[in-house]
Amino acid sequence: MGARREPIEYSAASAEVRAVYDDIMATRNTDWVGNFWKVLAHDPPTLRRIWSNIKQVMGPGSLDPLTKELLYVAVSASNGCHYCIASHGTAARKKGMTEAQYSELLSIVGLANETNKLVTALGVDIDPQFL
Amino acid sequence: MGARREPIEYSAASAEVRAVYDDIMATRNTDWVGNFWKVLAHDPPTLRRIWSNIKQVMGPGSLDPLTKELLYVAVSASNGCHYCIASHGTAARKKGMTEAQYSELLSIVGLANETNKLVTALGVDIDPQFL
Amino acid sequence: MGARREPIEYSAASAEVRAVYDDIMATRNTDWVGNFWKVLAHDPPTLRRIWSNIKQVMGPGSLDPLTKELLYVAVSASNGCHYCIASHGTAARKKGMTEAQYSELLSIVGLANETNKLVTALGVDIDPQFL
Amino acid sequence: MGARREPIEYSAASAEVRAVYDDIMATRNTDWVGNFWKVLAHDPPTLRRIWSNIKQVMGPGSLDPLTKELLYVAVSASNGCHYCIASHGTAARKKGMTEAQYSELLSIVGLANETNKLVTALGVDIDPQFL
Amino acid sequence: MGARREPIEYSAASAEVRAVYDDIMATRNTDWVGNFWKVLAHDPPTLRRIWSNIKQVMGPGSLDPLTKELLYVAVSASNGCHYCIASHGTAARKKGMTEAQYSELLSIVGLANETNKLVTALGVDIDPQFL
Amino acid sequence: MGARREPIEYSAASAEVRAVYDDIMATRNTDWVGNFWKVLAHDPPTLRRIWSNIKQVMGPGSLDPLTKELLYVAVSASNGCHYCIASHGTAARKKGMTEAQYSELLSIVGLANETNKLVTALGVDIDPQFL
Repeated sequence: MGARREPIEYSAASAEVRAVYDDIMATRNTDWVGNFWKVLAHDPPTLRRIWSNIKQVMGPGSLDPLTKELLYVAVSASNGCHYCIASHGTAARKKGMTEAQYSELLSIVGLANETNKLVTALGVDIDPQFL
Repeated sequence: MGARREPIEYSAASAEVRAVYDDIMATRNTDWVGNFWKVLAHDPPTLRRIWSNIKQVMGPGSLDPLTKELLYVAVSASNGCHYCIASHGTAARKKGMTEAQYSELLSIVGLANETNKLVTALGVDIDPQFL
Repeated sequence: MGARREPIEYSAASAEVRAVYDDIMATRNTDWVGNFWKVLAHDPPTLRRIWSNIKQVMGPGSLDPLTKELLYVAVSASNGCHYCIASHGTAARKKGMTEAQYSELLSIVGLANETNKLVTALGVDIDPQFL
Repeated sequence: MGARREPIEYSAASAEVRAVYDDIMATRNTDWVGNFWKVLAHDPPTLRRIWSNIKQVMGPGSLDPLTKELLYVAVSASNGCHYCIASHGTAARKKGMTEAQYSELLSIVGLANETNKLVTALGVDIDPQFL
Repeated sequence: MGARREPIEYSAASAEVRAVYDDIMATRNTDWVGNFWKVLAHDPPTLRRIWSNIKQVMGPGSLDPLTKELLYVAVSASNGCHYCIASHGTAARKKGMTEAQYSELLSIVGLANETNKLVTALGVDIDPQFL
Repeated sequence: MGARREPIEYSAASAEVRAVYDDIMATRNTDWVGNFWKVLAHDPPTLRRIWSNIKQVMGPGSLDPLTKELLYVAVSASNGCHYCIASHGTAARKKGMTEAQYSELLSIVGLANETNKLVTALGVDIDPQFL
C-alpha cells in the first residue's frame, strides 16, 4: 500500500465511523460526506478528533462564518492544498464568496508570500509602533 | 555586510525614496513609515514596486478592509513572519479586530496547516461536488 | 524538455550508472531500482552522491532501521512528497510498520504542523527547563 | 499588541485555565507548565482543545512513547520551530534519546528535505512496486 | 467551481486582457501566451499587475538574463512548482542553460534545503565575519 | 540540552574533526571555519558528509562559482535561513556580487514565491510548449 488510502463509504463503515458521518451531515445539513473524512475513517479516533476540531474551530464564534472560510481557503492556497482549496472554496461560495472576492483573496495570498519572504530575508526589525 | 540592511530614515533618503514615503504616509494617514519600507529603500525601484502592489491589492475592492488585513495576518502567521504578523496585526486591530477574533484566526491557521498536511499526505481525491 | 526527466533503465545505462544501480540492489537485496535513482542517473555524480548519503544516513547506527524509516516518512509527509511517502512507506512496512502505526505517525505529523505554526506565530519563549 | 502574547501564570489563571494546567501536570507528572500552554491560555477553548489533541495523539498507542517524541522532534526540526524542538527534544531525552540518536535524527531530517525537493522538482513517477 | 480556473483564449478575451497578452508577446517576441496569464485573465487588474512585476523584475538589470532565469527556476524547484519550473526552465534553456547546468542547479537546490534545515534546527549563530 | 549545540573550536577538536577543518580552510584559502561546521562537529561523520557534499556541489562545474553562490543565497532567502544568507551572501560578495545584484536576486525570490503560490493555487496546466 502506498501513500493513499481508499475512501470508506457509508455502507461499508462501522457504527463508530457512521456516527461521525451522521454528525457531519447533520451539522452541515447535507446528505453526503467528503473524501477527506472517508479516508480518515481508516483511523476512527483520528476521524473523530479532526471532526471535533473542525466543528469547534469553524463553528459559531467572533468571526462570521464566511470570514472563517476565507481564512481557511487563504491558508490552504498558501500551502498549495488543492483538496482544501476546493472543499473550503465550495463552502465559502455557499456562504457568499464571489469570484471577485476569491480573486482578491488569491492576490493577498500571493503578495503576502512575496513580502513575508522579503521581510524575513532582510531581517527587518519590528517597529516599536507594532509592539 | 550580512543578510540585514539598515533602515534609511526620511532625513537621509533621496527625493525618489521620499516620494514613496510621502505617499505611504498620505495613504495611511500616518506621520511615520515602517522599517520594511525603510529597508526596501536601498533599492528604490523595488520600494516603488512593492508599495504599488500593496496599494492595489490592499486598497478598496470587493472584500472589506478588515477582512483583507485578517487574510494578510493569517498567511503571515502560517509562514511564521513575525514582522508581518505584527504590522498587519496592528493594522487589523486599528480596523476593529478583537483579541477574540485574533485567537480564532490563529486557530484556523493552525488547524488548516494540520488538515492541509493530512490531505496532501493521504492523496485525497477531490469530490465531484467540489469541482 | 520540461521539469521532468525520463528514467534511465539498466539496459540503457552507462557502466558508471550501472555500478550504482548494482550497489543499490546489493545493499537492499532487491532485483530492481526505483525511479528516483533512474531519474538521477542523468547526472551520474549526483546519483553517486545522493546514494552515498542515503547509504550513510540510513545505514546501521544508533536508531533502529524501522525508526529511521518512520522519521523519513514523517518528514516526507510533512513536506507533501508523494514519491518519498510511497517509497519510504514501503520500506517502513517491510521493516514492520503496521497500518495503525502509520496512522499514528500521520497524526503526529498533522498535529506537529499545527502546534509548530501556533508556537511560531505567538512567539513563545523557550522555558529555561528546555535549555 | 504585537504578534506575541505574555504567558499567564498559574496564580493569575482562571479556574478554567487552572483545570487544564492541573491536568497537564498530572499527566506529565511535573510541577510546572510550559510557556506554550501559558500563552494559549489567553484563549481557554483553544488551550483545552490543543491539550486534548496532544493527550490523544501522544498518549499510549501502537508506537512507543520515545518513537512518538522522535517523530515530533523531526517534524519540528524540518519546520524550524525552535520551541518545539526544545520542548519535545527534552521530552525525548527524558524517554531515552541519546545525543547520537539526535544527530542521526537531524541527518535524516536534512537528507529527507534534500531528496523531497529533488523528487518533487524532477516529477518522479511512483514505481508500481510502491503502490 | 473548484480551485481551478479555465484559461481565457485571445479570441475570447476583452480588449483590456488582449492589451496585456499583446504586450507579453511583443516583449517576449512570441506568438502565444502561457496558461498562467490566461488563467490570471479572469482578474484583469491582477493580470496587469503581475505582468508589470515580471517585466520589471526580469527585465534588464545588473544580473544577466540567464542568471535571472536560473534563480527563478531554483526558487520554483525549491517550492515544488511544476508549472514554474517548466516555464522558466524553458526560458532558461532558450537563454543558454545546458542540461549539465540544470543538474547543477538542482543539486544546489537540494543541498541548500538540507543545510538550511540543519542550520535552523541547530540554531547556529552567525559568525562575526559574515556580518 | 535544547535545540542548540555549542561550536567546537579547533583547539578542542579531535584529530578527525581537525582534518575536516583543515580541508575546509585549505579549500577556501582562509584561516578560520564557520560556526555551522563547528556545530556539526558534534557528529563527525555528518561533518565529513556535509562538507564532502558542499565541496562536490559547489566546486568547479558547468555553472560559474558566482552563479552557484547566487543560487545558494536565493534558495536560502526563500527558506528564511539567516545564517545561510549571511554565509553564502558573504561568499557571493567575495566572488563579485554587487549590492544591486543582491537586490535583484531578492526581488526574484520574492516574485517567484508570489507566482509559485498563484500558479499552484490556480492549478494551471503546463503548456505543451513547455514540455
